[in-house]
Amino acid sequence: MIRVGIVGATGYTAVELIKILLRHPNVTITQVTSRDPDGPAVADVHTSLRERLDLNFCQLDIDAFVSQVDCAFCCLPHAASAKIVSQLLEKGIKVVDFSADYRLNDVATFEQWYNVEHPDGQRVGNVPYGIPELFRDQIEPASLVANPGCFPSSALIPLAPLMQQGLIEPAPIIVDSKTGVSGAGRKPNLKFHYPECNESVMAYGVGTHRHMPEIDQIIARFSGDTISTVFTPHLIPMDRGILSTIYVRPLAGVTAAKLQSTLAAFYASEPFVRVTETAPTTKDVSNTNFCDVSVQDCRGMIVIVSALDNLIKGASGAAVQNFNLMFGFDETTSLL
Amino acid sequence: MIRVGIVGATGYTAVELIKILLRHPNVTITQVTSRDPDGPAVADVHTSLRERLDLNFCQLDIDAFVSQVDCAFCCLPHAASAKIVSQLLEKGIKVVDFSADYRLNDVATFEQWYNVEHPDGQRVGNVPYGIPELFRDQIEPASLVANPGCFPSSALIPLAPLMQQGLIEPAPIIVDSKTGVSGAGRKPNLKFHYPECNESVMAYGVGTHRHMPEIDQIIARFSGDTISTVFTPHLIPMDRGILSTIYVRPLAGVTAAKLQSTLAAFYASEPFVRVTETAPTTKDVSNTNFCDVSVQDCRGMIVIVSALDNLIKGASGAAVQNFNLMFGFDETTSLL
Amino acid sequence: MIRVGIVGATGYTAVELIKILLRHPNVTITQVTSRDPDGPAVADVHTSLRERLDLNFCQLDIDAFVSQVDCAFCCLPHAASAKIVSQLLEKGIKVVDFSADYRLNDVATFEQWYNVEHPDGQRVGNVPYGIPELFRDQIEPASLVANPGCFPSSALIPLAPLMQQGLIEPAPIIVDSKTGVSGAGRKPNLKFHYPECNESVMAYGVGTHRHMPEIDQIIARFSGDTISTVFTPHLIPMDRGILSTIYVRPLAGVTAAKLQSTLAAFYASEPFVRVTETAPTTKDVSNTNFCDVSVQDCRGMIVIVSALDNLIKGASGAAVQNFNLMFGFDETTSLL
Amino acid sequence: MIRVGIVGATGYTAVELIKILLRHPNVTITQVTSRDPDGPAVADVHTSLRERLDLNFCQLDIDAFVSQVDCAFCCLPHAASAKIVSQLLEKGIKVVDFSADYRLNDVATFEQWYNVEHPDGQRVGNVPYGIPELFRDQIEPASLVANPGCFPSSALIPLAPLMQQGLIEPAPIIVDSKTGVSGAGRKPNLKFHYPECNESVMAYGVGTHRHMPEIDQIIARFSGDTISTVFTPHLIPMDRGILSTIYVRPLAGVTAAKLQSTLAAFYASEPFVRVTETAPTTKDVSNTNFCDVSVQDCRGMIVIVSALDNLIKGASGAAVQNFNLMFGFDETTSLL
Repeated sequence: MIRVGIVGATGYTAVELIKILLRHPNVTITQVTSRDPDGPAVADVHTSLRERLDLNFCQLDIDAFVSQVDCAFCCLPHAASAKIVSQLLEKGIKVVDFSADYRLNDVATFEQWYNVEHPDGQRVGNVPYGIPELFRDQIEPASLVANPGCFPSSALIPLAPLMQQGLIEPAPIIVDSKTGVSGAGRKPNLKFHYPECNESVMAYGVGTHRHMPEIDQIIARFSGDTISTVFTPHLIPMDRGILSTIYVRPLAGVTAAKLQSTLAAFYASEPFVRVTETAPTTKDVSNTNFCDVSVQDCRGMIVIVSALDNLIKGASGAAVQNFNLMFGFDETTSLL
Repeated sequence: MIRVGIVGATGYTAVELIKILLRHPNVTITQVTSRDPDGPAVADVHTSLRERLDLNFCQLDIDAFVSQVDCAFCCLPHAASAKIVSQLLEKGIKVVDFSADYRLNDVATFEQWYNVEHPDGQRVGNVPYGIPELFRDQIEPASLVANPGCFPSSALIPLAPLMQQGLIEPAPIIVDSKTGVSGAGRKPNLKFHYPECNESVMAYGVGTHRHMPEIDQIIARFSGDTISTVFTPHLIPMDRGILSTIYVRPLAGVTAAKLQSTLAAFYASEPFVRVTETAPTTKDVSNTNFCDVSVQDCRGMIVIVSALDNLIKGASGAAVQNFNLMFGFDETTSLL
Repeated sequence: MIRVGIVGATGYTAVELIKILLRHPNVTITQVTSRDPDGPAVADVHTSLRERLDLNFCQLDIDAFVSQVDCAFCCLPHAASAKIVSQLLEKGIKVVDFSADYRLNDVATFEQWYNVEHPDGQRVGNVPYGIPELFRDQIEPASLVANPGCFPSSALIPLAPLMQQGLIEPAPIIVDSKTGVSGAGRKPNLKFHYPECNESVMAYGVGTHRHMPEIDQIIARFSGDTISTVFTPHLIPMDRGILSTIYVRPLAGVTAAKLQSTLAAFYASEPFVRVTETAPTTKDVSNTNFCDVSVQDCRGMIVIVSALDNLIKGASGAAVQNFNLMFGFDETTSLL
Repeated sequence: MIRVGIVGATGYTAVELIKILLRHPNVTITQVTSRDPDGPAVADVHTSLRERLDLNFCQLDIDAFVSQVDCAFCCLPHAASAKIVSQLLEKGIKVVDFSADYRLNDVATFEQWYNVEHPDGQRVGNVPYGIPELFRDQIEPASLVANPGCFPSSALIPLAPLMQQGLIEPAPIIVDSKTGVSGAGRKPNLKFHYPECNESVMAYGVGTHRHMPEIDQIIARFSGDTISTVFTPHLIPMDRGILSTIYVRPLAGVTAAKLQSTLAAFYASEPFVRVTETAPTTKDVSNTNFCDVSVQDCRGMIVIVSALDNLIKGASGAAVQNFNLMFGFDETTSLL
């Protein structure tokens, strides 16, 4: 039985993670932390967990924590996360980190985009990026995995193999993403107040979203090219799901059919990536760990559509998939 | 041209009110107040009003305000409202008050349910309740009208005539209401955070909602009976609309058909109440000043369904309807 | 390994059932039938099942079917279902029937409400009603279980124990239910066309819904009283979930607290019923087999709120719970 | 008083058109046609119009129709429309046509994309395209106006001025549009069944949508360039609204600020186009005739966001705006 602790468990990814872990035959959840000194019952904060998890939130005490857990899932904000993660690693705990702290190749890019000093810069660039379909060999032996961003996952799963095999131009790479509101987190904010975002679509972070350098750098590991992804996320009136519509140019002579068969071959034995003939919808993958991908042509431009559940394959499902690899369990355990 | 000021104009009822008044041929909006000392442009706060209203918010200064307005729509919270309303009235300004401060018959009931001392108790009980279909004669000559609560409007429009004519039992009166989230106001709150209330239905205020005494007292003006309405509101994942399903017992020998024809006759010449044969939906009345009502039988119990738009007939539309009466304009002006 | 066949598998309950059964360690799905002679792949009709179930739909051939299945889940319309169920039972197949055909006590009531001759009247009245929390002893040894209606489940789980213990009056029993649109099935219809039911609430079947006699008769098995439930369902703009708000009168001296503790005691050891202190929401139980129930007082009337997922505890989850009992598996298998 | 007839009035654009025309001081609606021989009351089909319009649907009889109307709004499907429009024009009736029949430059392109012989090819290429902001001079004297497609309107309003002034490259022009489901019409279809499209996003018509040649040809009238728009529409779980996110390359040295100020100048005196500094949302323009447009930069690519209500500025509002021009009324009449 692997004893699991969740650091920063008041959000939507945490509750989804708990639900997945409660189905895992080899896991027991022993610690659930938050900043709240009152330590409410987890089920009082996440009412869907009533009678499912008999634990109270506690504030993080590193020594107490490491004495009770073998693996930590860290759901803290960027910069705050690396401070804790580095301590947990030093105590011999394995960690899946949900923050952006260890995803990028270098500290300079992190500090430029996140506008904060990195508290554990030495590890940056040496942590496997947690898309198992792309980096399984690095994830299996790792003590720390950087769980990927939800938008980057939806873009990289189709783009990485195509770039690796040199089938598409390095520019333009336009990623137009549509996400459900759970992606914005659980903290109340006028932008995510029901009557503001219901019956509306909103583009946000135009030209400034931090997932751009993440997509750039991971693609570059496959292609060698320097990429400048043009990425625009949109808030959609639904709870969960990301649909990314990706516009790229094929190299001369490369057809959509060729690109689709390339992806189908690349992911043929993967349990969680499905290459489809028609464009997938977010409902096809809702509440699952699947990422569905299609490739079509529009007047010489390639239109890739990629769908995943932002809280599962885009966060907590991927995290458990990484956990399964790190601990030698079947990769699909509790995820199908 | 009637110069209109709106006091406390940052919420959803205010923006709806502004949109209606902008279509009114006899109105010019001259003052729009909020507590914000920075005085942002109205269109920066309510982006749907871009290029529609070239005014900035200002903090309320009674003297400046009364020098520029003939009529005030007051959208302040309860108790805060009466403090201002009383001053405006003393300066000779006519007022439509959106708060609960002047809706009840007596100060004691107000203070019991609202748990605050009433700042203008002398006027309580002498202010017309702003459902024109029921109290038109009192509204026309009034300087102050108490704009009704959204749920009470949906309950009283069907119940008042039936109680007045002695066709239904005084108990039980069960009002099960379903409302869109705009009814909860514009202030961010976890309960109204998009991912909390989307794809969910929630009963709230069970046994404690302040609209119960309001329904009771207004019905009593028609029936003489002491009523204890059992009222349960539910939050529904939609922007706007209230559907009230009302369960009452007919007196012996009274049929649903008799009740329906009674309502049809009572409202025959009313421009904004429609008695329908099948149950209306909130979409039938969305973005309108209509209240649609049906009466059906279920195994001897009467099931009344009443639908209105909580922001229009339940708030700002009713307010303009009252305004039109108070100033001698055609009652439907800018409301059809 | 129990071989399972699903009869009439093109709807939403079937796809939900398949997803649950795919997680069941003791089940293999061997037959999936529809009326379509072309026999499309299941995953072409239910795209969320891509790469999950490698079966094509086939038309039902009783002999072929019974040679390949040990248990049938029958998702046919009423009357059509009993014709098939009776044949399957005669061949020794165990059946969980989703239709209304075997739920009522007697053929006359069935024929009165469903307006069709019952094709297997002899069994009516002798089939366990599939709410395990109420009828577990009858379900375990049964060859046929009548899976309950979604609305009746939400009403009966709270009402049955309270009626049994004689704590509430037999009238009025008012059940005001709010349901997501998946409850209306998968067949396109103007009423369930997205722009018709989004941003709207609609009462339907007022006074005529067929779940009324079902609630009446099952309650009567507990109380002995003849009941006439007043039941009004409402269509809510969400995918799934039922919230029933139930209004009853307590016997003299019985408090809401007493009723709540009675339910808490009755369901103390049940894995899928949670008695809560505040009113549950449908989101609390979405995508789960839980039914959450609260009891509160409103001016002497008791307001019970009951929440379940119409496709899980209201249909396919309950069906698998019944299946687990019929085949001796742990009742919670694949349901947590 | 202009007598207006609506041909093919069972859909969502027609009901929206009726609501706008009912507020128009110079219009009386005299004929409302459908194919239904029973001639139901308009308010029985469109229940939101109860007590608003006392007309029954009638089948179209050209002679009777032209004797009662001065202007027809034709809401028929493509090809069917031109057959009727040509007859109405010959009888001296002015027409606003909602179909695609007269929008393109030439018959060959029409027949290639719509796969049907054009019934009135002689007029094609000589009919003003009904975006008043771009073609006002041609619309004012016209007897027939081709009301534009909803997606093309959202793309052309920002693109036409920028292409005309030679500020952006002719390729790529990528238009990624998100639309509410009312855009799909009122006919029930599994794709638009509530539980299919709620909580989901779907790309459709990838590479094949008929609005592409419409965008191409209208842009070409401004730029002279041959354009191949890459256009992908997406279905969003909301009733109404289109948000188009448009990706273009600026010519060397042209900034987003320059493009924004160009649009601001071009539309400075237009009552229905608002150039905004931050990206508009569909809620900003919902239930209005506005089109809001922003221009931002993302790593050297220009990201234009355009928002309109598909039923108003994308259909019926534009139609009345054209009508006002054709009959010499103030262009904003009944549209603010």
